[in-house]
Amino acid sequence: MPGMPSQRSEKVGDPFGTHRALEPAGALPQPAWRLDNDFSRLFAGELLLAVETLNVDAASFRQMEESGDVAKQVLETVAKRGKQHNPVTGSGGMLLGRVLEVTPEHPDAATLRAGDRVATLVSLSLTPLCIDAIKAVRPTSAQLDVDGQAVLFASGCYARLPDDISERLALAALDVAGAAPQVARLVKPGTNVCILGAGGKSGILCAAEARRRGGPSSRIIGIESHAPFAEDLRALGVCDEVLSLDARDPVAVRTGVLAANGGREVDLSISCVNVPDTEMSAILVTRDRGIAYFFAMSTSFTKAALGAEGVSKDVDLMIGNGYAHGHAEHTLQMLRDLPAVRALFEKRYG
Amino acid sequence: MPGMPSQRSEKVGDPFGTHRALEPAGALPQPAWRLDNDFSRLFAGELLLAVETLNVDAASFRQMEESGDVAKQVLETVAKRGKQHNPVTGSGGMLLGRVLEVTPEHPDAATLRAGDRVATLVSLSLTPLCIDAIKAVRPTSAQLDVDGQAVLFASGCYARLPDDISERLALAALDVAGAAPQVARLVKPGTNVCILGAGGKSGILCAAEARRRGGPSSRIIGIESHAPFAEDLRALGVCDEVLSLDARDPVAVRTGVLAANGGREVDLSISCVNVPDTEMSAILVTRDRGIAYFFAMSTSFTKAALGAEGVSKDVDLMIGNGYAHGHAEHTLQMLRDLPAVRALFEKRYG
Repeated sequence: MPGMPSQRSEKVGDPFGTHRALEPAGALPQPAWRLDNDFSRLFAGELLLAVETLNVDAASFRQMEESGDVAKQVLETVAKRGKQHNPVTGSGGMLLGRVLEVTPEHPDAATLRAGDRVATLVSLSLTPLCIDAIKAVRPTSAQLDVDGQAVLFASGCYARLPDDISERLALAALDVAGAAPQVARLVKPGTNVCILGAGGKSGILCAAEARRRGGPSSRIIGIESHAPFAEDLRALGVCDEVLSLDARDPVAVRTGVLAANGGREVDLSISCVNVPDTEMSAILVTRDRGIAYFFAMSTSFTKAALGAEGVSKDVDLMIGNGYAHGHAEHTLQMLRDLPAVRALFEKRYG
Repeated sequence: MPGMPSQRSEKVGDPFGTHRALEPAGALPQPAWRLDNDFSRLFAGELLLAVETLNVDAASFRQMEESGDVAKQVLETVAKRGKQHNPVTGSGGMLLGRVLEVTPEHPDAATLRAGDRVATLVSLSLTPLCIDAIKAVRPTSAQLDVDGQAVLFASGCYARLPDDISERLALAALDVAGAAPQVARLVKPGTNVCILGAGGKSGILCAAEARRRGGPSSRIIGIESHAPFAEDLRALGVCDEVLSLDARDPVAVRTGVLAANGGREVDLSISCVNVPDTEMSAILVTRDRGIAYFFAMSTSFTKAALGAEGVSKDVDLMIGNGYAHGHAEHTLQMLRDLPAVRALFEKRYG
């Protein structure tokens, strides 16, 4: 019956959602083939959402477009798997919706209210979902407007959509929400930083965060090969130098960064450039016992590990974690605190 | 003329060896197609070695065995590329030899002596090499005995072979030399540690290092699915508990580790298990703001990054760097300091 609270199960839910895995039973929900999407009863710790929009992963959406009717395939996948987990690409996406019901055991039970508008920050590939109707398919944004419901587990991250930032702008920022909070942890006054791909979405946020944490005693060097992005970055004024170099050329990048940093390697390099073969550039510009932080999903684990070994560079190599405590709020707040960054994001992504 | 010192070039060598790249000129030597292996003149910073044994990467050796005469292919590759960089597998190996000449600009010029026996710790895929003769091919160890010469660049790591440890044992330990020194940096008294694949070569060194750094107030938990390795590890006595679990089953691993650690997640997880799909086990056993350290070359960058995000785990994810300052000496010294570890290594690898 619509509007009626669901009947809660006595059973305690696992914070990671293994209680909803049907095939194989008890697995983590992401690798599981099929999830339980019967929302007539909730498990302790769960959060039930009314789904308005599915923001499908770009690779998944393209694959479905190429093989036929997107709406039909989404309905089939959800019917078969209990989640929008594209069986060909393996990818998911995120969703926008409203809070329907919060179990008292959910960590945010005290502050979440029915009706709050939220975006999920965990993948659709692990989110139990059911769809009543698909109302529109919007190929330009890889989105579907739907009537449906979904459950977030206690460990499942989401962001409340703010009133003062447009939905498109908020989504663009939330997509790379993990980057700036990690930079904030690593940069202190005087830390010298090199950002590869500094003119892209995550690169701009990293550069702006490095500047405000490092202050005037830090040197912030941006590498950006795409000319319009390099211009935007220069105009933003957060970098001491913006070098128009190809991040796949480690010798040129090292030469340029040393010249821009008084002959010294930097304390921290951050790779935000989503092309392969940029690991050595990040490693070669980083000082002994410094940190090379890789946000780019195109990073190769073995190229980074063996590359550092091959040049005997004793640097810490870090995999960018997409999650950090408070990362969504942190990143949305940057748009409020830094009007020039917000204006650039609105121009590009708003 | 044999025995005559080579004539040094006036030209300063780059510590990373770009001065020896011929195709393309000025590239890093690993990605370069062809290196300059004319050792009649050395560049400042270089170290010239007489090569006795090539220890070819296992994948490379197997590929050459399957496609014909190994010795002939090695000679062809070195003639074509100036290095033993298998063009099919892309991999190299390491070499054993003696110091012939040290340029005064080499960082170790003050301590290296002609005749010192050394093993290189950087890949053959970036080491300029020429071969005068191949004297033997030893398929069981993927080794070739050769007469030849090679150059190490100023950044190129090597280890002096000790007198008191057999060559086979030293090589087995040097192969995983990067692991224990990193553990030594991360484990303090009281640090709780979980090691996946703790009964293998690098796993044993990590467990032993964690135990001696952590002392009695640390809890060291080993995961090992191979029964004989688990038995060896139990007999070694460095772990508080050895759990016979499959590291690809994150739910079972998490349940087991929590039970073995008083219901708490560990501060540090270390993955030494060379099979795919073990990232989630390492992530799920690690506490909030703890560290998951991945030594296993089978680690997937994206599975680690997206996996942590999917369960909203704010942990630091680290790529195991094969190099750390003093790593070879550190690891060889462990064999001297820890007789039980040495006995086990001698039984298995000696």
